[in-house]
Amino acid sequence: MTRLLSKINSPADLAALDLSGLQQLAREIRQELVETVAVTGGHLAPNLGVVELTLALHKVFQTPRDKIIWDVGHQCYVHKLLTGRRTVFHTLRQYGGISGFPCPRESEHDAFGTGHSSTSISAALGMALARDLKGENYGVVAVIGDGAMTGGMAFEALNHAGHKRTNLIVVLNDNEMSIAPNVGGLSRYLTRLRTDPMYSRGKEELEHLLKRIPAIGPRVARAVERLKDSLKYLVVPGMFFEELGFIYLGPIDGHNIQAMINVFQQARSTQGPVLVHVLTRKGRGYPPAEENPDQFHGVGPFDIQTGRVIKKEGEPPSYTEVFGRTLVELGRQDERIVAITAAMPAGTGLSHFARAFPERFFDVGIAEQHAVTLAAGLAAGGLKPVVAIYSTFLQRAYDQVLHDVCLQNLPVTFALDRGGLVGEDGATHHGVFDLTYLRSIPGMVVMAPADENELRHMLKTALEHPGPVALRYPRSAGTGCPVDGEPVSLPVGRAQVLREGNDITLLALGSMVSPALEAAGVLARQGISAAVINARFVKPLDEEIITRYALRTRRIITIEEHNLEGGFGSAVLELLADRGLRNIQITRLGIPGQFILHGRRSLLLARCGLTVDGLVDTVLNNLKGRRTSVRVNLGAGTGGK
Amino acid sequence: MTRLLSKINSPADLAALDLSGLQQLAREIRQELVETVAVTGGHLAPNLGVVELTLALHKVFQTPRDKIIWDVGHQCYVHKLLTGRRTVFHTLRQYGGISGFPCPRESEHDAFGTGHSSTSISAALGMALARDLKGENYGVVAVIGDGAMTGGMAFEALNHAGHKRTNLIVVLNDNEMSIAPNVGGLSRYLTRLRTDPMYSRGKEELEHLLKRIPAIGPRVARAVERLKDSLKYLVVPGMFFEELGFIYLGPIDGHNIQAMINVFQQARSTQGPVLVHVLTRKGRGYPPAEENPDQFHGVGPFDIQTGRVIKKEGEPPSYTEVFGRTLVELGRQDERIVAITAAMPAGTGLSHFARAFPERFFDVGIAEQHAVTLAAGLAAGGLKPVVAIYSTFLQRAYDQVLHDVCLQNLPVTFALDRGGLVGEDGATHHGVFDLTYLRSIPGMVVMAPADENELRHMLKTALEHPGPVALRYPRSAGTGCPVDGEPVSLPVGRAQVLREGNDITLLALGSMVSPALEAAGVLARQGISAAVINARFVKPLDEEIITRYALRTRRIITIEEHNLEGGFGSAVLELLADRGLRNIQITRLGIPGQFILHGRRSLLLARCGLTVDGLVDTVLNNLKGRRTSVRVNLGAGTGGK
Repeated sequence: MTRLLSKINSPADLAALDLSGLQQLAREIRQELVETVAVTGGHLAPNLGVVELTLALHKVFQTPRDKIIWDVGHQCYVHKLLTGRRTVFHTLRQYGGISGFPCPRESEHDAFGTGHSSTSISAALGMALARDLKGENYGVVAVIGDGAMTGGMAFEALNHAGHKRTNLIVVLNDNEMSIAPNVGGLSRYLTRLRTDPMYSRGKEELEHLLKRIPAIGPRVARAVERLKDSLKYLVVPGMFFEELGFIYLGPIDGHNIQAMINVFQQARSTQGPVLVHVLTRKGRGYPPAEENPDQFHGVGPFDIQTGRVIKKEGEPPSYTEVFGRTLVELGRQDERIVAITAAMPAGTGLSHFARAFPERFFDVGIAEQHAVTLAAGLAAGGLKPVVAIYSTFLQRAYDQVLHDVCLQNLPVTFALDRGGLVGEDGATHHGVFDLTYLRSIPGMVVMAPADENELRHMLKTALEHPGPVALRYPRSAGTGCPVDGEPVSLPVGRAQVLREGNDITLLALGSMVSPALEAAGVLARQGISAAVINARFVKPLDEEIITRYALRTRRIITIEEHNLEGGFGSAVLELLADRGLRNIQITRLGIPGQFILHGRRSLLLARCGLTVDGLVDTVLNNLKGRRTSVRVNLGAGTGGK
Repeated sequence: MTRLLSKINSPADLAALDLSGLQQLAREIRQELVETVAVTGGHLAPNLGVVELTLALHKVFQTPRDKIIWDVGHQCYVHKLLTGRRTVFHTLRQYGGISGFPCPRESEHDAFGTGHSSTSISAALGMALARDLKGENYGVVAVIGDGAMTGGMAFEALNHAGHKRTNLIVVLNDNEMSIAPNVGGLSRYLTRLRTDPMYSRGKEELEHLLKRIPAIGPRVARAVERLKDSLKYLVVPGMFFEELGFIYLGPIDGHNIQAMINVFQQARSTQGPVLVHVLTRKGRGYPPAEENPDQFHGVGPFDIQTGRVIKKEGEPPSYTEVFGRTLVELGRQDERIVAITAAMPAGTGLSHFARAFPERFFDVGIAEQHAVTLAAGLAAGGLKPVVAIYSTFLQRAYDQVLHDVCLQNLPVTFALDRGGLVGEDGATHHGVFDLTYLRSIPGMVVMAPADENELRHMLKTALEHPGPVALRYPRSAGTGCPVDGEPVSLPVGRAQVLREGNDITLLALGSMVSPALEAAGVLARQGISAAVINARFVKPLDEEIITRYALRTRRIITIEEHNLEGGFGSAVLELLADRGLRNIQITRLGIPGQFILHGRRSLLLARCGLTVDGLVDTVLNNLKGRRTSVRVNLGAGTGGK
């Protein structure tokens, strides 16, 4: 069997293929996707769903001249295979390899970077308007999932695009789920579009019928006119989108290449904004992914035969898992506790809570802003809401945290998963800004557990605190430490001295406490006495302990898995400056101020000097009077492409 | 004529009034609104529009038991007059007086604080779900303008509420404009609802007609059934909302009290989420405001007879005005420059640009997220977009700035108006977090002009820079400085030494440069030699100049109109710590870490020590070895109600 895929070096090579060739290519692509992601991990199910869709798009539109924007970008693997990255596809999401998301720096075929959801229509409209102003002529296509469509900014963009009436194609890739099954009125509406057989019929027989109505006077004539008007609601099922100013085409079978080629050609020749409604199946063609699209949405390495994820032997439970189980424990004790996710019940560990207390669990869809203000409303109504969310996605709701929660001092707990470097998902997903944007909000308490046991206590602490609290923990397994039976509330703003020392103080936060302790052990063997403090709180800081150790050792190294600008170390600088303490040498270790690309988390941490070895080196340099300057060459930097 | 208003001490007092009494009360309230706001300034036109609506709501719903959430909150004046704040209404927006926005700390009748737009449905749904879980029974009403409805999070909340089907009333206060006239597909749709006479007829005659269709076989029978189905699109005009799961009632004349009482009673007894579409007129009852609702949206003190705003004599043009005019100048030179506002053409000064280059101007409605990513798309398409926005509202699009603009290093200029304390609008509107959240984003350039002349140069600088730039300037008149003819590009990351000195360095940013210079003059007369540096850039900092003066004077006072946590002063601390400079005394002056309430900007600045006198005191204390501790008692603090 000839491998067609091996001959596709750019989308132009698709021109030589007829329909059966494209179908053959689709099979080969599916095989390539499964074989690669089984090794690298990645977003398998979404990409299996868009094989034919991607082929049809590249058959009709010529990138890079035409622009295709993928929303969310994790459905871009097929696009990458077709646009010159076939031979490096095995490096997917690996350090130095290709990204798992569209990346304009990587290829001119990637028109816009998209790691967060619901941005594509805005970006596409911007490009379309730029094209119009410059008198250019190219196609702009946003491909957006039905899950991403529930994000508010997608609606903002639809509303504006419908008003501007420029040429723009929005492909709604409707697989009936975002990551978990979809929620919301829009989802119900799309289901109706999909399933109502009325929509698939023509208006032929209705027109026939109307002709039979006897014409009897102007009153009835008017009524008939009105009926004819109403026909559009029968033959134009996408009324919701039509009302916003779009022409609706669909629904189309998203696994029928020819049907999609036809409709994209039609869309392309239509004036004004068009919405093409395409129905696809997540995981299509690989039975384990079809059966468990949620599990295969983003998946680690797995066994192709069985579809079983390859588990690391004897690894402690993840922070996510410990959080999820602890919340169920605490939920049993206090029925005011409710939990909210924005379409991430499994990823955040809330599935446990959802099963235990379905009526106290709210999945709002991909809608982080609403999630946070909903929590504010729940708190105002007397409950204790916990918003479980990835650090990077809470960025979407920064204003809601500030304006709706903190300004009113409402007791909402933010459980920030993936706080720190997330590894293979890369620059769009690292959660390395949260300490800065959260600690600058008045009234917020910000903490980070040193291990899974402390996570349990901190969750209890947050739920007993009368105001807003954020706790952030990394994307990783726990430390394997012993776990206390009952979570207890910790004193707010109190750090923990883990090891006494006189030469230098290692003031570590969260995930950095363990390596700091270990580094202190290594240093002790070299005759250096390093104190180790588990800071626990970024806000409020433990002023007493930090000041005491600053004065005692005169050298402090702050260590955080977080961007250095405005973060934990800066809070320590502020404290010591405000106290008028001079002559203290403060070295801040963390992530230097640049975007960090993808790769294994442990590798990225090592590059930032955030490992035992890195800490030991920093201390030794420090004591020798040398400044440590971490140079990291894994960032996206600030240069151009 | 008896004053009815003087007898209304709580909404319960409305019970005694019949329809004509309510109408009389409406007239008195309008008079009170005009007379008060003519003195205090404030949001006049929106409140004149909701007089009858507010009376009808309080007639049907019993606050504080029932919850009414105002979106945006500036339409709450009538509500405040009716809920026990009549006698203090003259203190509106004044220091120590009542807020111009709903404020739960101020009254138990204010269910939720709302200064930013489009939050109400989320908050209301949260309260409704809390009520259900606790087995309580009260009404929850969100009153949202048609402008606020275009904000994405309102859609996120509608989508979720339509899915949950709990009892919840959304009143769409449709006055055909947000602040400026509305844009967007949704707006066009609402206009059609308002104006199409078809919608106001019954289905009577259509049913009559259907009966006349001869029954000829099952095929036609099916078609007739389908027609009957389609009738709902004729008689249920709010199809858009119905599709999302809401029951739609309306449109209702929002100045007809009895009609609204009837519909609110109906809504109250309906199961599930209800949307009541109310048509009001902004400025209603005061001719100057009816004629210029945009100008009277938020207005300063004005003359009641003429409707003319009372201008301060001989005041220099505002930063807003200088920005707006300069952008037109630059736009003439470079046709790639385009401008974007989120419903604030006048407030941001973009009206000039809109008039000069209508095709290069985009008003996206109240949709900050879309505004920013649209700009990213425009930049990706080869243009030079300027997003003109209030600092506080850019918080809504923090993730878009980071993920869509900076991560891709796109040349978007953010012109942040109202950077710093805004005065009378208070805690929800102060723009005092921007330096922190912007400077922590890799690749961003952040600057602040010392005067209106420098604003012109900085705008030019931003537009020539190949990456993202933010410039922030205060809500105030300029300094009245001479203005250079032609804007020129400044070197990025270079500060400006304004005055040499040896005893201490005043390192001032933006609006604080002028008072710092003046303070240095005062100090010189007392024999103290203070250097003054105009920092210009928060990112990148001028490392060379700052280090040099740190070493020379050994005392630095950083001065910023911004929250102290993570701001400009912290950037300076970071720089000096990273350079290993110890024994430098750094005092950070700015806004202490608390929410600041409303009042005249100059007064709030004085309370924060950010005036010439305050600076002189700080320097004197500093030189005497005393630490300055600014205690501000004008914050909302972090305590409960």
